[in-house]
Amino acid sequence: MAHLLSTSCSLKLSSSCRPSSQPSPPNPCAGPVIERLSLRPQLVKCPTRCPAFFTLQISESSFKGLVLQGGRKKRTCVVRATATPLSQEAPTQSSSTSHQNSGEPSKQKRVMVIGGDGYCGWATALHLSKKGYDVAIVDSLIRRLFDHQLGLDSLTPISSIHDRLRCWKSLTGKTIELYIGDICDFEFLAETFNSFEPDAVVHFGEQRSAPYSMIDRSRAVFTQHNNVIGTLNVLFAIKEFRDQCHLVKLGTMGEYGTPNIDIEEGYITITHNGRTDTLPYPKQASSFYHLSKVHDSNNIAFTCKAWGIRATDLNQGVRCTKSSAIGLIMMGFCVQAAVGHPLTVYGKGGQTRGYLDIRDTVQCVELAIANPAQPGEFRVFNQFTEQFSVNELASLVTKAGAKLGLDVKTISVPNPRVEAEEHYYNAKHTKLIELGLQPHLLSDSLLDSLLNFAIKFKDRVDTKQIMPSVSWKKIGVKPKTVAA
Amino acid sequence: MAHLLSTSCSLKLSSSCRPSSQPSPPNPCAGPVIERLSLRPQLVKCPTRCPAFFTLQISESSFKGLVLQGGRKKRTCVVRATATPLSQEAPTQSSSTSHQNSGEPSKQKRVMVIGGDGYCGWATALHLSKKGYDVAIVDSLIRRLFDHQLGLDSLTPISSIHDRLRCWKSLTGKTIELYIGDICDFEFLAETFNSFEPDAVVHFGEQRSAPYSMIDRSRAVFTQHNNVIGTLNVLFAIKEFRDQCHLVKLGTMGEYGTPNIDIEEGYITITHNGRTDTLPYPKQASSFYHLSKVHDSNNIAFTCKAWGIRATDLNQGVRCTKSSAIGLIMMGFCVQAAVGHPLTVYGKGGQTRGYLDIRDTVQCVELAIANPAQPGEFRVFNQFTEQFSVNELASLVTKAGAKLGLDVKTISVPNPRVEAEEHYYNAKHTKLIELGLQPHLLSDSLLDSLLNFAIKFKDRVDTKQIMPSVSWKKIGVKPKTVAA
Repeated sequence: MAHLLSTSCSLKLSSSCRPSSQPSPPNPCAGPVIERLSLRPQLVKCPTRCPAFFTLQISESSFKGLVLQGGRKKRTCVVRATATPLSQEAPTQSSSTSHQNSGEPSKQKRVMVIGGDGYCGWATALHLSKKGYDVAIVDSLIRRLFDHQLGLDSLTPISSIHDRLRCWKSLTGKTIELYIGDICDFEFLAETFNSFEPDAVVHFGEQRSAPYSMIDRSRAVFTQHNNVIGTLNVLFAIKEFRDQCHLVKLGTMGEYGTPNIDIEEGYITITHNGRTDTLPYPKQASSFYHLSKVHDSNNIAFTCKAWGIRATDLNQGVRCTKSSAIGLIMMGFCVQAAVGHPLTVYGKGGQTRGYLDIRDTVQCVELAIANPAQPGEFRVFNQFTEQFSVNELASLVTKAGAKLGLDVKTISVPNPRVEAEEHYYNAKHTKLIELGLQPHLLSDSLLDSLLNFAIKFKDRVDTKQIMPSVSWKKIGVKPKTVAA
Repeated sequence: MAHLLSTSCSLKLSSSCRPSSQPSPPNPCAGPVIERLSLRPQLVKCPTRCPAFFTLQISESSFKGLVLQGGRKKRTCVVRATATPLSQEAPTQSSSTSHQNSGEPSKQKRVMVIGGDGYCGWATALHLSKKGYDVAIVDSLIRRLFDHQLGLDSLTPISSIHDRLRCWKSLTGKTIELYIGDICDFEFLAETFNSFEPDAVVHFGEQRSAPYSMIDRSRAVFTQHNNVIGTLNVLFAIKEFRDQCHLVKLGTMGEYGTPNIDIEEGYITITHNGRTDTLPYPKQASSFYHLSKVHDSNNIAFTCKAWGIRATDLNQGVRCTKSSAIGLIMMGFCVQAAVGHPLTVYGKGGQTRGYLDIRDTVQCVELAIANPAQPGEFRVFNQFTEQFSVNELASLVTKAGAKLGLDVKTISVPNPRVEAEEHYYNAKHTKLIELGLQPHLLSDSLLDSLLNFAIKFKDRVDTKQIMPSVSWKKIGVKPKTVAA
């Protein structure tokens, strides 16, 4: 379980960590004094080391002599300005190295991880930091707000990003810089690019839940706007400020849908009426979230061609390890087994997808960064290591549960999604293997550890959230609130 | 030229028509008295028949006793509320018929034309009105603002939508209802659906210029946001309020790019590694505008599958007749010939595309409405009638010019776009022919009339706008202003 601990240091440091739901910081300070305020996003220096999180509402009326007061003001401020990069509190060697090293090997490359407060992004940031890259996290933290709004919490307590970065520094001596803001705000994004000067951008910074995108109209619109415009802004920032920067973008295997032919990696060679061409693989996404990733892929492909952007699209499979309860089937089954709930199979259970371990996610990202795409190249890797049907996963969890003394049942529930429940599925995934990926396949020991993990935290499970609450067909136009 | 006159009644009624650039209405009235104001979009009744155009800024501070004053207030108001449907001034037979006729033949079907103030939308609205459909136009009129911002004007004077509708009524006795607002505002769109109750929606309401989308970052972002979110809203409105309503959506042949194999109509049957499936035709769009149409197509396809929406995507070719100077090559060449400027061929001039006459646009839309897609069907028609390369078009205009005594030269200019300049192109376009389309092919007489049209209005041509000013490669992040 070492790989899991690395992504949740709160487990090791529970006494000093605050769960994100705690309303105010334990050590409030007087807050940063803003000496000079302009209409550009600000780097706000906090004079103490308190973990409070400061943001600025920048407006003309607050232009002069503003003093923010600790945690209190936080609720009324707009998340727009950047927080203090921790490196300004305690500079390290790595943050003072030259930025002009994009042509060198992987050491000291500067990597910006957008969405670094999320599950994959955080694991990636730590992995790259550990490997010697200079890392900055860019995140609006909005995923935390979604959980509050939906009445959800993660299976494991998740500390604030500030505490996690401090924890990382105390454990390793390594500094990860932090820029808090929304990449849909180009002024903010431009500032992060000009401040950090990345050699590679790993872009996880999107609304990443299919069910979330199918809750109601406003969430569907939010998902497509947020993801498409955020990625457009990243492309423009690369073109304008760092034209040799390599974009590593997280896509999804769900872009392909379930065609009745083999799924290739991004492109397919078609012979038709006696002529042949290699074209983008046809996409058949099945949620507004998955569609947003298709839109991104099309936009990125165009900018590679038109502007010479270097980009790698990682069409990731389902991550086969712990996460929140939203839409990740493997951990969902483990949680159900842990709390004595039957495993809920949607419909016939023949839905087959590609899966991978979070350790392989971070390995794939590193391989992509270390072997960048060429200028103008839009490279697509299918990022998964194994295929399973839902019924196969249920069977594996049932067997693993039996070994731990759990009597695991399975029930079929009406499928809330619109998808084929029995279909052909054969997706290629050789390009990352060719670059050196060493897969962590789903093993009995991993399943055991996942189940034990679920059992350890089973008191945190909200059993009301187990059954599907979002329907692909019943999505409506009225904003939906989750009942208490 | 009869077909042209029908789309520009200002030519016949110049004495009573105001060009859109005129700042205030000729007959200002006291404006509508708002007796009751809520936070929902309002239908504002004007007590007189003055042509003034009233909009409301609905906010809590203006909640009570607001009286708008004629044209003066207009500049500070937000285009959000709906204008008075003209039918409320002078009800006609057609507007009082039952709305419950979606299962009947084409007569009295209620058709909402989104983007009906634009070139294709206006022609379509008139054509359908003439054919006996009950028609409503939904438009934010923002295209007129774009022209102001870019310092452009159309080749022919274009009257206000209000005057044009009055003109149509005086000529034919037929009423076309008008809803002014932005379909990205779902509250407004919901109101139009519930008020008009369409049986079919023809959706032209998008930013439709590729060069516009490539001016700068903000225009690129606007184009994708506006087009994608607007279409999402239309899909949600259909699902929620008129689930049998047929969506007829204007796409573009540019979604396909220029593959080295034949272009099919929306789908292609692929045999790969011994298995066969029919999949969406691969897309390779080459501007942020064309990409927005690809995104739309993908979103629509999903909602047909998930919700049972009926939709027809009309992948339209280049319209081969008069329009503004933005990006429409055929009329551009005629204008250049008329003012004595050499025809500007981008690069080698081998770029081949599908073309069609505006009369065929309206015919195709009517055919699609009269033969609707089935529930759940996402039908794609390639809507063009002929293919030409740029060099072929230049040659045709040169010959037609010679007959009129014009000495037409051709020059090659550096291609501002990123596109293949010599390529295979063979696109299918049989489905609309099978439904009964009678094409108006490009003839000597049409070319003559286009040239004469350009000559008639050549004094309106701004020769500074002739050379390409937008570069696909040089697009930047700073908002671009067109110099005076």
